[in-house]
Amino acid sequence: MSKQILETFPNQYPGREYQVDIECPEFTSLCPKTGQPDFGTIRIRYVPDQHIIELKALKFYLFSYRSQGIFYESVVNKILDDLVAASRPIRCEVIGDFTVRGGISTSVRAVYEGD
Amino acid sequence: MSKQILETFPNQYPGREYQVDIECPEFTSLCPKTGQPDFGTIRIRYVPDQHIIELKALKFYLFSYRSQGIFYESVVNKILDDLVAASRPIRCEVIGDFTVRGGISTSVRAVYEGD
Amino acid sequence: MSKQILETFPNQYPGREYQVDIECPEFTSLCPKTGQPDFGTIRIRYVPDQHIIELKALKFYLFSYRSQGIFYESVVNKILDDLVAASRPIRCEVIGDFTVRGGISTSVRAVYEGD
Amino acid sequence: MSKQILETFPNQYPGREYQVDIECPEFTSLCPKTGQPDFGTIRIRYVPDQHIIELKALKFYLFSYRSQGIFYESVVNKILDDLVAASRPIRCEVIGDFTVRGGISTSVRAVYEGD
Amino acid sequence: MSKQILETFPNQYPGREYQVDIECPEFTSLCPKTGQPDFGTIRIRYVPDQHIIELKALKFYLFSYRSQGIFYESVVNKILDDLVAASRPIRCEVIGDFTVRGGISTSVRAVYEGD
Amino acid sequence: MSKQILETFPNQYPGREYQVDIECPEFTSLCPKTGQPDFGTIRIRYVPDQHIIELKALKFYLFSYRSQGIFYESVVNKILDDLVAASRPIRCEVIGDFTVRGGISTSVRAVYEGD
Amino acid sequence: MSKQILETFPNQYPGREYQVDIECPEFTSLCPKTGQPDFGTIRIRYVPDQHIIELKALKFYLFSYRSQGIFYESVVNKILDDLVAASRPIRCEVIGDFTVRGGISTSVRAVYEGD
Amino acid sequence: MSKQILETFPNQYPGREYQVDIECPEFTSLCPKTGQPDFGTIRIRYVPDQHIIELKALKFYLFSYRSQGIFYESVVNKILDDLVAASRPIRCEVIGDFTVRGGISTSVRAVYEGD
Amino acid sequence: MSKQILETFPNQYPGREYQVDIECPEFTSLCPKTGQPDFGTIRIRYVPDQHIIELKALKFYLFSYRSQGIFYESVVNKILDDLVAASRPIRCEVIGDFTVRGGISTSVRAVYEGD
Amino acid sequence: MSKQILETFPNQYPGREYQVDIECPEFTSLCPKTGQPDFGTIRIRYVPDQHIIELKALKFYLFSYRSQGIFYESVVNKILDDLVAASRPIRCEVIGDFTVRGGISTSVRAVYEGD
Repeated sequence: MSKQILETFPNQYPGREYQVDIECPEFTSLCPKTGQPDFGTIRIRYVPDQHIIELKALKFYLFSYRSQGIFYESVVNKILDDLVAASRPIRCEVIGDFTVRGGISTSVRAVYEGD
Repeated sequence: MSKQILETFPNQYPGREYQVDIECPEFTSLCPKTGQPDFGTIRIRYVPDQHIIELKALKFYLFSYRSQGIFYESVVNKILDDLVAASRPIRCEVIGDFTVRGGISTSVRAVYEGD
Repeated sequence: MSKQILETFPNQYPGREYQVDIECPEFTSLCPKTGQPDFGTIRIRYVPDQHIIELKALKFYLFSYRSQGIFYESVVNKILDDLVAASRPIRCEVIGDFTVRGGISTSVRAVYEGD
Repeated sequence: MSKQILETFPNQYPGREYQVDIECPEFTSLCPKTGQPDFGTIRIRYVPDQHIIELKALKFYLFSYRSQGIFYESVVNKILDDLVAASRPIRCEVIGDFTVRGGISTSVRAVYEGD
Repeated sequence: MSKQILETFPNQYPGREYQVDIECPEFTSLCPKTGQPDFGTIRIRYVPDQHIIELKALKFYLFSYRSQGIFYESVVNKILDDLVAASRPIRCEVIGDFTVRGGISTSVRAVYEGD
Repeated sequence: MSKQILETFPNQYPGREYQVDIECPEFTSLCPKTGQPDFGTIRIRYVPDQHIIELKALKFYLFSYRSQGIFYESVVNKILDDLVAASRPIRCEVIGDFTVRGGISTSVRAVYEGD
Repeated sequence: MSKQILETFPNQYPGREYQVDIECPEFTSLCPKTGQPDFGTIRIRYVPDQHIIELKALKFYLFSYRSQGIFYESVVNKILDDLVAASRPIRCEVIGDFTVRGGISTSVRAVYEGD
Repeated sequence: MSKQILETFPNQYPGREYQVDIECPEFTSLCPKTGQPDFGTIRIRYVPDQHIIELKALKFYLFSYRSQGIFYESVVNKILDDLVAASRPIRCEVIGDFTVRGGISTSVRAVYEGD
Repeated sequence: MSKQILETFPNQYPGREYQVDIECPEFTSLCPKTGQPDFGTIRIRYVPDQHIIELKALKFYLFSYRSQGIFYESVVNKILDDLVAASRPIRCEVIGDFTVRGGISTSVRAVYEGD
Repeated sequence: MSKQILETFPNQYPGREYQVDIECPEFTSLCPKTGQPDFGTIRIRYVPDQHIIELKALKFYLFSYRSQGIFYESVVNKILDDLVAASRPIRCEVIGDFTVRGGISTSVRAVYEGD
C-alpha cells in the first residue's frame, strides 16, 4: 500500500510559539511477526514554525498503517520523522500507547527538539 | 456579527502577583470549511496587572464566536490577543480543548508572557 | 474476504444455566458509504447449552470484519446470528458500542432468547 | 429558520426487536427568555420497526436547533415527536441533560411506547 | 424570613407522562441545634400534570433556606410538600444528600405518588 | 466497655414512608481472633415509623465498637438488632463493607422488613 | 497438588437471611492449553444457612489454583460446587472476571439457588 | 456582621519547615452585584513558623463570609491577608475554586512568600 | 500505653539510592481535646541507607496510636522522628491525610532530608 | 527453578533518545517468610541504546518469579539489574506497586542512570 501524504497549511501566528496537541485513539496496525492487529492511541504535541499540520490528511495518514506490519518502536519513530519532514516544526513529540498483549501494555515516546 | 467588547474593572490587589483561572466548557464556533459547528472548552489563566477581566462581558465575548467560521488555531490565538489588548495582564495563557472530529481531538495552547 | 469460522467445545456444566460475558474493545470495520474505518467495542453475553464459544476462534472471527464495509446495525445482528448458529445457546446478547462520528456516538443491542 | 428533515433507511432486521442508542453531547439551542445559549446532551434510545434513523440527517436535524429559542421541556418532547413521525419506531425514548444555570442543572426524559 | 414563592407555567405536553430531573448542589441551611451551616445537594424528580416548575423561582425558593434552622428530615419533606402544593404533579420525589458531620453523612428521600 | 445508648426523636412526618440513608466510613473494631483492628464503612438505610435515629448518639454508638472484639457478620447483625430495638422502623437495612485482609475484602448486608 | 479444604463455622444469626459478599482480586491459575498464567478477580455472594465460610481457609483454597491448569468456565463452576458442598448455603453466586487475553476479556457467572 | 477572629496555638515543631493543607468545600458568600449566593472550595497551604492555625476558629472565620457581599478576587486575597496577619507563616497560599456561573467557572490563587 | 518498637533489617542494595513508598489508610488516633476518634491515611516515602523498615513492626507501631490523644501536626512529626531514629534513612517524608471534621479536611507533610 | 532469559533485538533508531514504558499488572511472587503469594504491578521505563527489550521474553522472565520467595525490595532491584545487564540501556527505571498486606500497601522504585 502506498503511504498517504501529510499536508500542511501556513501558520497564521508564526511570531508566537504556541503548542498543538492531537490525540487519535483509533490507531491500528499489524504485528510484523504474527500478522495480528495491534491497537493504540497516538498522541502528537508540536510547536509549529511556518506550517500547521492539516488534520484531515493526518487522519488519512494514520489510517494508512492499518494494513502495515510494523513494530511499536517503529510506529512512533516513523510518525515523528514524517511529521518533522512534512511540517518542519520548532518541536514535536509523538507518543504511542498500545493495548495489552500477553498481560503487558507498552508505550513509546519520541521527541524532535528542532535543529 | 459585530464582535462583543471585553470589559475590565480595576484590580484591587495590584501589589500581589496572583493568578485567575477561568473555564468555559460551552464554547462553540463554526468550521470555516464545512460550516458545521465546532465545540470545545476554553481555559484562561492570567496574572492581572491593573485590570481584572469582567466575567459577564467575557461570557458575551465568547458567545460571539457562535456564528463565526474560524480555525482552532485562530480561536485560541485571537482570544489571547483580545484578552491581552483589553486587560494588559502580566501573563496570560489560553487553551482550547476541542471535541473529536474524524476520530481525532485537538487542543491548542498559547501564552503571552508580558512585555 | 472469506469469513473466519467460529468454533466451540463441549460445555462441561450443561446442567447449570450459567452466563459468560466476553468483551472485545478492539473491533474495527469499514463504513460501507465512505470506506473509512469504524471502531467499537463488542460485548457478548450468553448462556451456553451444549457448546462453549472458543475464544481464540472468536478473536479471529471478529478480526475478519477489519476489511469489510458494513453498517453498525448489521455488525451487531450479524454477529448475533453467527454466534447463535455456531453455539446454539440458551440465550445470547450482542452489544456494539461504536465511537463518535460527527459528534454522535451510537450503540446497538440485539438479543436471542432461544427457541 | 426552516427545520432540517430527518431521514431513514429500511431496517434490514425487522423480525428482531433490537435497540439503538444514540448520544449527541454537542446540542445547543437558545433560551427563549434571555436569548442566551443553552447547552446539553441529547440521548435517544429506540427500537426500530421498518425504519432506521439515518445518523447524518439526525446530526443536521439536531444542529438546526442552534438558532432556535426553545424551553428544555419542549426540546425533548419535540425531538421525540419528530423522531416518531419520521421513523415510526416500536418504542422511542429521548433524554436531554442540560448544563448548569443559576446553580441548577436539569434533565428531561420522554418516552413513546408505540400505539 | 418570609418564604419565597414557587412559580409554575403551563405544561405544553400534558398528554404525555414525561419526567423532569432537577439537581441543586448549592443548598445550604442552618442546624437548628448549633446554628452552624449545613450543606447538601437537593435532587427533584417529578412528572408534571398541568404545571411545570419554573426554575428561577425554584432557585430563589431553595436559597430562602439559607438563614433557616431546620433538620435534614424536615428540609426534604417540606420541599416535597411545597412542590406538590405549587405544581400538583402526577409524581414527585425529593432527595437531600447532606455533607459529612462527625464522620457521618446522611441522605433523605421522600416521594409523593399522586392522589 | 459498656455499650453506648442509641437515641431517637419523634418523626415529624409519620404519615409518609420516606427513607433515610446514613454512611459512616470511620468504623473500626477488633478481630476477635487476633486482636488486630478491623476497619470498614457502615451504611444504614431505614424507613422511620414514629422515631428518627439521632445522629450524634449513633456516632457514639458506632464508636463504642472501637475496643470490641467481634466478627464481621456479628457487627452487621448486632447493629441492625440495636437500631430496630431503639427506633422500631418500618424497614431497616445495614451494610458493612470491610477493608482487605489477606487479599480478600468482605461485605455483609442484613435487612429487617418490619413485623 | 492436593486441593485445600474449605472450612466453616456456625452461623450465629440463622433466623435471618442476610447476605455476605467476598471479593478476591488476587486469583491466578494456569491456562490448560498453554501453561501460561491466567489472572482474575473472584467474587462470591452467598446467603448462609447454618454455616459461615471461614475466610482464611477460603484464601488458602483460592491460592490452591495457582499451579492448576483449568479453563475459566471450570474455575467458576468448580468454586461454586465446592462452596455449596462445604457450607450448604441458602443461595450462592460465583463470578470470575478474568483479565485481557488476545484483546478479549471474559467473565463467567454461576448461581446456586438452593434445593 | 463583625468579622470572626482567627486563632493560633504554638507550633511544637518550629525547627522543621513542614507544610499543612486545609480544604473547606463548604464556603459560601454573596455576590456584591446581585446579592445572590456564591459557592466554592477554599484551599489553604502554609508552612508554619511559630504559630499553628486553629481549625475550629478557622471554620467560624470562613463561615463569617456567609452574609457578606464580596468578589472572588477579594475573597482569596482577604483570606490570605488575614491568615498571614494572624499566624505569621513562613509561606502561605490560598486558592478559591468557585462554582459555575453563566457557563463559566473561576478559580483564584494567591501566595504569600514570607518577608 | 507503651509505644510499639519499630524494627529494621539490613538493606541488601545499599549502593543504589532507591525509594520505598508505604501507604496505610487505616490510621486512627484520638483528638486530645474531645477524646473522639480521628481517622486518616499515613503515607511514608523514604530512601534507605543501611536499614529497611520492617512492615509488620510498622503496622503494629501505627496501630499503637489507636488509644492516644494527639494533634494532627504531632502525629506526622512524631512518626517522622521515630522512623528517622529507627532506620537512619538518606531521606524520609511523612504525609498524614485526615478525614473531614466540621466541614474541613487537613493534611500535614514533613520531610527529613538527611544530615 | 532456573531463571528465564531476557532477550533483545537491535534498536533501529539508535540516534534518537526515545523512551519505552512497559506495564505488567500481572506480577506475582511468594513471600519468603510465609510462602504466601504476593501480587503487584511492575512498571519499566527505559531509554534504549543499541538494544530493545523483547516483550515476549520479558513476559516469560516476569512469570519466572511466580514460584520464587523474594522480598519487595529485591524484586525491583533484581529486575532492574537483569534489564540493565541484558539491554545496556541509556537509562532504566523499575517500579513495583504491591497490593495491600495487613492494611499497608508498598511501592518500590529504583533507577539506573547509565554509566
